[in-house]
Amino acid sequence: MKLTDLGEKEIIRRLSEFLNIGDDAAYIRINDKYIVLATDMIYSETHILPIMSWEQIGKFIVTVNFSDLAAMGAKPFAFLLACGISDEDFENFQRLIKSADKQCRKYGAEYVGGDTKYANELTLSGTAVGFAKKPVLRSGAKPGDVLAVTGTLGSAALATDLILEKLECDNEIIKKVLEPEPRIREGILLSKSASAMTDISDSLSLSIYDIADKSNVGVELEINKIPLEKTAIKLSEEMNLNLMDYALYGGGDYELLFTVSEDNLKVIEKKIKATRIGNITKEKNIVGIDSGREFVLKRKGYEHFRNLKSRKQNDFIVK
Amino acid sequence: MKLTDLGEKEIIRRLSEFLNIGDDAAYIRINDKYIVLATDMIYSETHILPIMSWEQIGKFIVTVNFSDLAAMGAKPFAFLLACGISDEDFENFQRLIKSADKQCRKYGAEYVGGDTKYANELTLSGTAVGFAKKPVLRSGAKPGDVLAVTGTLGSAALATDLILEKLECDNEIIKKVLEPEPRIREGILLSKSASAMTDISDSLSLSIYDIADKSNVGVELEINKIPLEKTAIKLSEEMNLNLMDYALYGGGDYELLFTVSEDNLKVIEKKIKATRIGNITKEKNIVGIDSGREFVLKRKGYEHFRNLKSRKQNDFIVK
Repeated sequence: MKLTDLGEKEIIRRLSEFLNIGDDAAYIRINDKYIVLATDMIYSETHILPIMSWEQIGKFIVTVNFSDLAAMGAKPFAFLLACGISDEDFENFQRLIKSADKQCRKYGAEYVGGDTKYANELTLSGTAVGFAKKPVLRSGAKPGDVLAVTGTLGSAALATDLILEKLECDNEIIKKVLEPEPRIREGILLSKSASAMTDISDSLSLSIYDIADKSNVGVELEINKIPLEKTAIKLSEEMNLNLMDYALYGGGDYELLFTVSEDNLKVIEKKIKATRIGNITKEKNIVGIDSGREFVLKRKGYEHFRNLKSRKQNDFIVK
Repeated sequence: MKLTDLGEKEIIRRLSEFLNIGDDAAYIRINDKYIVLATDMIYSETHILPIMSWEQIGKFIVTVNFSDLAAMGAKPFAFLLACGISDEDFENFQRLIKSADKQCRKYGAEYVGGDTKYANELTLSGTAVGFAKKPVLRSGAKPGDVLAVTGTLGSAALATDLILEKLECDNEIIKKVLEPEPRIREGILLSKSASAMTDISDSLSLSIYDIADKSNVGVELEINKIPLEKTAIKLSEEMNLNLMDYALYGGGDYELLFTVSEDNLKVIEKKIKATRIGNITKEKNIVGIDSGREFVLKRKGYEHFRNLKSRKQNDFIVK
């Protein structure tokens, strides 16, 4: 069986039969706290938008790794970066590294080391180290909890399409995908009361299925409640694009999806932007509700190996 | 200035002007001990010998990372692996991962997580996490200390050449380069008394220059004392190859180079294989001594970007 026949999720599931893996990050108890470790690798061809500057690339590799820490409720502490790079100008390479360093310090972490190797294609493999009092897993959702998200959804995937199609686009929306920020402050706050949490980097749909599968619960998703950005709504209407489709199945929104009791959500909403989008149910179905009518939420999003296969088969541009 | 004009060492030196980097691994104090972090990335084209099995590749990526921990005197604790891989059979990928997991457990560490992405060329980026009571840096060598190494040198580079030239070769020597082991036990023992330490992965020469530069001392290297393996001596004589050249300037020996007081070396020699190969001097020269006669030790070894350039210019096979 080839890796593209399986897709990233099934590869991880198979490896988790003998490895203790499968959450946003690993966690190991040390005295009264947990050290949290995440590694994320990006390639220029599949992960880096062609209009990104060296600074934006450096910032991005830190964000994607810190987002995995945020999803565990961890505070970043140290960062390492292994770079595979072709024979670039040192100045450009330095712009990338300085920007990564700046992004680390913005979140109170230190860029402590790395590795630099020659490669035909730019490859960045980051490792983020953080601490958490109590890591929040994907597996803790309970019937009766509500489902909620930070921020707004869909803008990043919409912006990615607009960039790849070379269409004119509002700067605010473009910035969202070129310079995402990890939800560190939100993750730490949520870790005090959330029963389950994950970041939405591959799609809201995949993240919902993940929490439901791992927590052994069902989800009722009210799509009319999904928070969307005003400028993204306006833009998608002008372009005749379906923003809700991006919000449900698009990647690149480094927001947090979490489950929590209704009472605790009220406390949270006073401190950060968080929106209730559904309920956790005992029946193990994933049900979408659109203006009172039920629909099937597709298990769809950005998934490595799988997306690649469909790209090969259809000869599409990657989106 | 292009990266290949600078070479890996100069790239690191320039980055260290604004980042706190440059030793075998990073270290951060936590309570009464240090957490030690190393990341090392390998590409199939430049780092993985064509005859390596999937198991050997998996073992190798753990070893190169753990060797950096060993060089700090740290005990491995956790390992993460980001893999870029083409559309392989899942079974082969699993062989790699299972072997990496086995190598982690051999040294008391846990394989805690990773990332898997599609890539045209096999890319493995490992991160090793360990603990040390007192990390040993490259910068602590003092005049009056002796210079010593663990194990034997030159066999790995000799074996690499024999493999690349497709020559017959003794199994024992080949195994040394296909399945190196990190000197964890030795590193922990040495950390109790060594004043400086580094691993010899790029070459003995480069490691000597590194310790001398960072410690602001000189080195007198007695090359007749460099420990060589009997089977390697026999083989190199048969093949009419200069084993000492491999021992001085070849990469792939994951041994430890360290400085220590003469008295402490005597204690160490009773517990592990360690050999005195020179002295640390106040005068900041690097002097090689061959049967009483001085010679210039070239600053030469395996160095990324630089080696690549000479390869491009001369169209040689990479060695």
